[in-house]
Amino acid sequence: MTTNADLANERSRATFTPSKITNLLDGSAKSTNRRRQLEALIENDPTDIFSNEDNHYLHRTDRHVRSLAKHVRLIELCRSIGIGSKTNGEVILDEDWFNLINAVADDLPTSLHWVMFVPNIISLCDEEQKKKWLPMCRDWKMIGCYAQTEVGHGSNVRGLETTATFVQEGSNQKGGDAKGGSWVINSPTLTSIKFWPGTLGRTCNHAMVIAKLIDGDGIDHGVHNFLVQTRSMEDHSLMPGVTCGDIGPKIGYNNMDNGFAKFENVVIPRRNMAMRFSNVDKNGKYEKVSVSDAASKISYITMMQVRSYIVMEASKGLRHGVTMAIRYSAVRRQGFKSNDAKEENQILDYKQQQHRLFPLLAASYCFFFTGKKVLTDLKAIEERLMNLADGEVTITKTEVGDIHASTSALKSFCTTIAADGIEDCRKACGGHGFLQSSGFPELITSYLQNPTVEGDNQMLPMQVVKVLLKLVKDVQSGKTEDWKKCDAKYLLDPVQAMLNGEESGSCSADTKEGMMKVKVLLEAYQHRAARLLVKVAQQIQTDVMEGKAFEDAWNGALIQMARVSRAHSTYLLLDNFVSGIAEANGKTIGPDEVAVLTDLALLFGLYWIEKEVGDFLEDGYMSAEQAEWARSCTLDMLNKLRPNVVALVDANDFSDFRLKSALGRYDGNVYPAILEASKKDPLNASEPGPGYEKHLRRLFVDGVGIYSGTASRL
Amino acid sequence: MTTNADLANERSRATFTPSKITNLLDGSAKSTNRRRQLEALIENDPTDIFSNEDNHYLHRTDRHVRSLAKHVRLIELCRSIGIGSKTNGEVILDEDWFNLINAVADDLPTSLHWVMFVPNIISLCDEEQKKKWLPMCRDWKMIGCYAQTEVGHGSNVRGLETTATFVQEGSNQKGGDAKGGSWVINSPTLTSIKFWPGTLGRTCNHAMVIAKLIDGDGIDHGVHNFLVQTRSMEDHSLMPGVTCGDIGPKIGYNNMDNGFAKFENVVIPRRNMAMRFSNVDKNGKYEKVSVSDAASKISYITMMQVRSYIVMEASKGLRHGVTMAIRYSAVRRQGFKSNDAKEENQILDYKQQQHRLFPLLAASYCFFFTGKKVLTDLKAIEERLMNLADGEVTITKTEVGDIHASTSALKSFCTTIAADGIEDCRKACGGHGFLQSSGFPELITSYLQNPTVEGDNQMLPMQVVKVLLKLVKDVQSGKTEDWKKCDAKYLLDPVQAMLNGEESGSCSADTKEGMMKVKVLLEAYQHRAARLLVKVAQQIQTDVMEGKAFEDAWNGALIQMARVSRAHSTYLLLDNFVSGIAEANGKTIGPDEVAVLTDLALLFGLYWIEKEVGDFLEDGYMSAEQAEWARSCTLDMLNKLRPNVVALVDANDFSDFRLKSALGRYDGNVYPAILEASKKDPLNASEPGPGYEKHLRRLFVDGVGIYSGTASRL
Repeated sequence: MTTNADLANERSRATFTPSKITNLLDGSAKSTNRRRQLEALIENDPTDIFSNEDNHYLHRTDRHVRSLAKHVRLIELCRSIGIGSKTNGEVILDEDWFNLINAVADDLPTSLHWVMFVPNIISLCDEEQKKKWLPMCRDWKMIGCYAQTEVGHGSNVRGLETTATFVQEGSNQKGGDAKGGSWVINSPTLTSIKFWPGTLGRTCNHAMVIAKLIDGDGIDHGVHNFLVQTRSMEDHSLMPGVTCGDIGPKIGYNNMDNGFAKFENVVIPRRNMAMRFSNVDKNGKYEKVSVSDAASKISYITMMQVRSYIVMEASKGLRHGVTMAIRYSAVRRQGFKSNDAKEENQILDYKQQQHRLFPLLAASYCFFFTGKKVLTDLKAIEERLMNLADGEVTITKTEVGDIHASTSALKSFCTTIAADGIEDCRKACGGHGFLQSSGFPELITSYLQNPTVEGDNQMLPMQVVKVLLKLVKDVQSGKTEDWKKCDAKYLLDPVQAMLNGEESGSCSADTKEGMMKVKVLLEAYQHRAARLLVKVAQQIQTDVMEGKAFEDAWNGALIQMARVSRAHSTYLLLDNFVSGIAEANGKTIGPDEVAVLTDLALLFGLYWIEKEVGDFLEDGYMSAEQAEWARSCTLDMLNKLRPNVVALVDANDFSDFRLKSALGRYDGNVYPAILEASKKDPLNASEPGPGYEKHLRRLFVDGVGIYSGTASRL
Repeated sequence: MTTNADLANERSRATFTPSKITNLLDGSAKSTNRRRQLEALIENDPTDIFSNEDNHYLHRTDRHVRSLAKHVRLIELCRSIGIGSKTNGEVILDEDWFNLINAVADDLPTSLHWVMFVPNIISLCDEEQKKKWLPMCRDWKMIGCYAQTEVGHGSNVRGLETTATFVQEGSNQKGGDAKGGSWVINSPTLTSIKFWPGTLGRTCNHAMVIAKLIDGDGIDHGVHNFLVQTRSMEDHSLMPGVTCGDIGPKIGYNNMDNGFAKFENVVIPRRNMAMRFSNVDKNGKYEKVSVSDAASKISYITMMQVRSYIVMEASKGLRHGVTMAIRYSAVRRQGFKSNDAKEENQILDYKQQQHRLFPLLAASYCFFFTGKKVLTDLKAIEERLMNLADGEVTITKTEVGDIHASTSALKSFCTTIAADGIEDCRKACGGHGFLQSSGFPELITSYLQNPTVEGDNQMLPMQVVKVLLKLVKDVQSGKTEDWKKCDAKYLLDPVQAMLNGEESGSCSADTKEGMMKVKVLLEAYQHRAARLLVKVAQQIQTDVMEGKAFEDAWNGALIQMARVSRAHSTYLLLDNFVSGIAEANGKTIGPDEVAVLTDLALLFGLYWIEKEVGDFLEDGYMSAEQAEWARSCTLDMLNKLRPNVVALVDANDFSDFRLKSALGRYDGNVYPAILEASKKDPLNASEPGPGYEKHLRRLFVDGVGIYSGTASRL
């Protein structure tokens, strides 16, 4: 089929070369080629196992089973082309592997194995344990999950109830017959039943279980990690004392068998406790293992990397959503320009549609640059730590706190915007956005876990403010040296000035054009973040001085903390966006690409001022006129970006196989695709349909519905 | 099981009598009793057809079939107790019927029959047509749908492509052999295929088809309604020339067979055109029927009633959501107060949780009062019109425009808030909000159609502003008399003052306490709405004067129009909330209930100022100090409402059968219910599970995943 004329026209108008931006997103032209090579491998696989065509018509059970088939076929492929393992026994989680996972474009029930289970073994187990378990992980003999949350307990780890009790060899208790001692794992209450871990329900045979460690003397040492075998490695039957299964259907992500597990006196060997940082000897004596400062910090860095990947995923999810919505808005026409017009308008020409979609397009790129920056920073810290001699001073508490604050704030902000944004893309497609064949329902319902997992978006701002209040304190006491290497360094001067009661600054734009400058926008975000932070600090201080308990003062400030966290994020995002463009300039991209990406950065900056303009007006930092300029500049940027938006989503280089969208297809032949998908529904498999014979017929033929007029009203 | 202690405690703290508010919501104590009586009928039905226990475990096809079974059983029940029909042949759509539909608590695939098809016959067909078709509708021999949208055409009715061409008796064309002439219905293009109509796919046997009327002389008279038989009334087989089926799975509402239909030379009798307002005679001559002004306006009023019902549904959906979220937040505990604390905090005590949920609780009540008010107004207008003699001056264009603006603005605002709000309630439940058994996924995904249907929420603001710009013009020319009876009358004085360039007012609160007054809040909303309206009017005027085409000026103002529409809504909502409470005072409710509802009204007013504070700061109407007061008052209202929130959601009187929620159950025994539901998933029906034998076993036993180290890397 030929490409839709509107889309072809859009593409011909672009002022830059999309493939250069594709290379930037992939890292290099070489990486783009490699990704495409691996995608082709999946798409052209001679079996039809990877087809996603029937996904939406299958019962959940069948979809789950089919996605297991995909996993097995994927491993088979990897084995034939030398991908997915290292000869030294370690599981390899490299770019090729993740490219393949992305290429499959469907959720695999095994994913917690490589996302959490294997990394947990690598970071928390000692060398001997790694040598034993990692080759089994590599060979997919051992498939694992990470079992932390319980049905009555979420992210408050201290509240977990599962117990691991030490039993000494020779004891006449259960587990006492094992050499070297054992752990007995128990779920002592209904609320302690493990609940939610992905891969746990039907797929894994091992779980990394988080449980309270009770040592040989009956002392509770708090939560630790234990490797618990849940199923036989021969026939996948449940191990004695383990009850587990799937937790049932969810709003999305239903390929995955999120599971529950109840443990009743489950015995595991003593050495199945993860023993890198602490251990228990044969006599049940607990001790912390002395490790270098660097080593313990590395595992903390790993935790923050997870949040950074989530920021990258926010970019990817949003790029997926805007690609579908912007292409369809170019193809879809509705509403006549005037009464005698023959042709309807492209939806993409309506200002409110642009105002809805273009800032999301900008955010989708913005999050990419920030994700990349934070991951690079973390990698650098990790390498610094690994190259240090033992005992050397490595990284300050302030630096660790700062990157914790950045990743927490960014995770919360980016996943909120992405979740709302993908859903808004869906709504922007009108009725057809409801269809599973549009690709939106699956994208959004799978994405929705992100605002909740790895620190609920409502809880993270507290953590951000905890760190930033330390900055305020350090400014007060003049100890700002450590902060100067930090993301939050931009806060130092304005916080200092505000604490000194100096005249509050004001926005420097003195014409509308002056507002359309990155520098002016960054200053505004800097001022806002500092002002809101100082205000929260003062509010808590005042409350406490007026006699409130600290906890109540803290609780009373929670709502404002969310504003601080958001303000911190937007500054960092815009700053990283601009510096990311500058860094790529002359490497993967040239002046044309720099120009259009800078337009996106400006739109991002302007849009979020427009949206939260009260924050800038309240203390007089901006005047009413400047607020009006910001709005007007936003409108100008929408116009300026208009010819480039289709090319900007093309640059994401999502193949149709990965997009899985009748609305977002590259060729724009939307309506035939929608109709084709409709016809596949099993409801259409027979005439006059599955509900007729047994039910509808009773009305039409048996006359069950005929009114006789004889029954008296109840 | 006994009630959860936290919930019992919450209930004991309430300062008012929930059942009085229940009666207010139902209309009277008598209505409450009747509703409960009908709910009991469904819940206690001796067949188990109405059970919703297995809904989430069924394949879509099976759920659809089961919901048809529910419909047939419901009709059977109605027949036995004299509900659902009138002896004069008319279909009855009364309170009893809607109570029964609600009691079923599951979507029925037949619903477009009574929601659109029958009302269409009643309002658009002539007396003879009604006499013929309505008894068949009553007896469920004829089941119909409303077929307007086409796969390439949404709400722009003028863009529809389906044709109905007149063929005279005796013509040698198809249809020429019918007595009195025929219509031949065609889908001339792929984009003209009817798409989306509910009930069309598998259930109905007739469709009210919207098609362009081509008369006997080949003249196109624009779109009209035609009754097209789609399936045989004997065996439900498709009629000649009709292809139709289900459009496939959607994000939600999957019991319903939204359908597609393609017409190829489908012949229907001439008298199957809806002929109340226009007709075509045997010779193919088209003419408008002269009807009274009143009669034509009544059908317009009916259209607006649909939007008002949507506002009521927004209230109901949101009440459903907050009931589940608030009860669960009372039961759920997480986070310790201090390091040595034993018991975790109730989630409901965290300020950000309150700030998330209580304003939604307030909105859920607020929308109820507005829905009730608008429906009462429309009813009054309808009755006024029906009692008028022909030709009498009835209702002014201004009045019709005004209520059009109100219902459009309210539909857009309320459904946006409800959709976002229900989803936010879901997110506020953390992980468990993802579970289908929580009740949230089905509630939100079914609700999501509301922001799109009956005027997309992004499009409606244009219609609102179109009307309100007329008000500005009338103020300019001094013709304000007609407006004084209108909802928008509150705009007259401030618009006048602004147009005269008079000093802009400012918020009259001079203490924090002063901010917590309905009058002060209403004045602020009044000022904002007037200011934004005048600004849009001036912007368009300026643009046009500067040489922009009107359409471009209009397009450029679309983003600001959305703000005007929202501002208009919030004023009306707060105003109706307060007057609704006053009206009920001393009837269904007493001083205790008035007090707590007034707290909700204040919270609603304060929260939306806090949220959009820039609108009030920008022109200096509010000072920074006043903005701070508004925030502080919001916090105070959260504290004040805290002891009453569980009782306020109890007052909704949703039975557990209707809530369908493990998290929202009245007794608060959440965790056993979640586990119970999990166990039912078909994935747990067998050990070691459906994916083992064929797939996972290949890894574990066949060794497909073993790394050999021989393959060279691709």
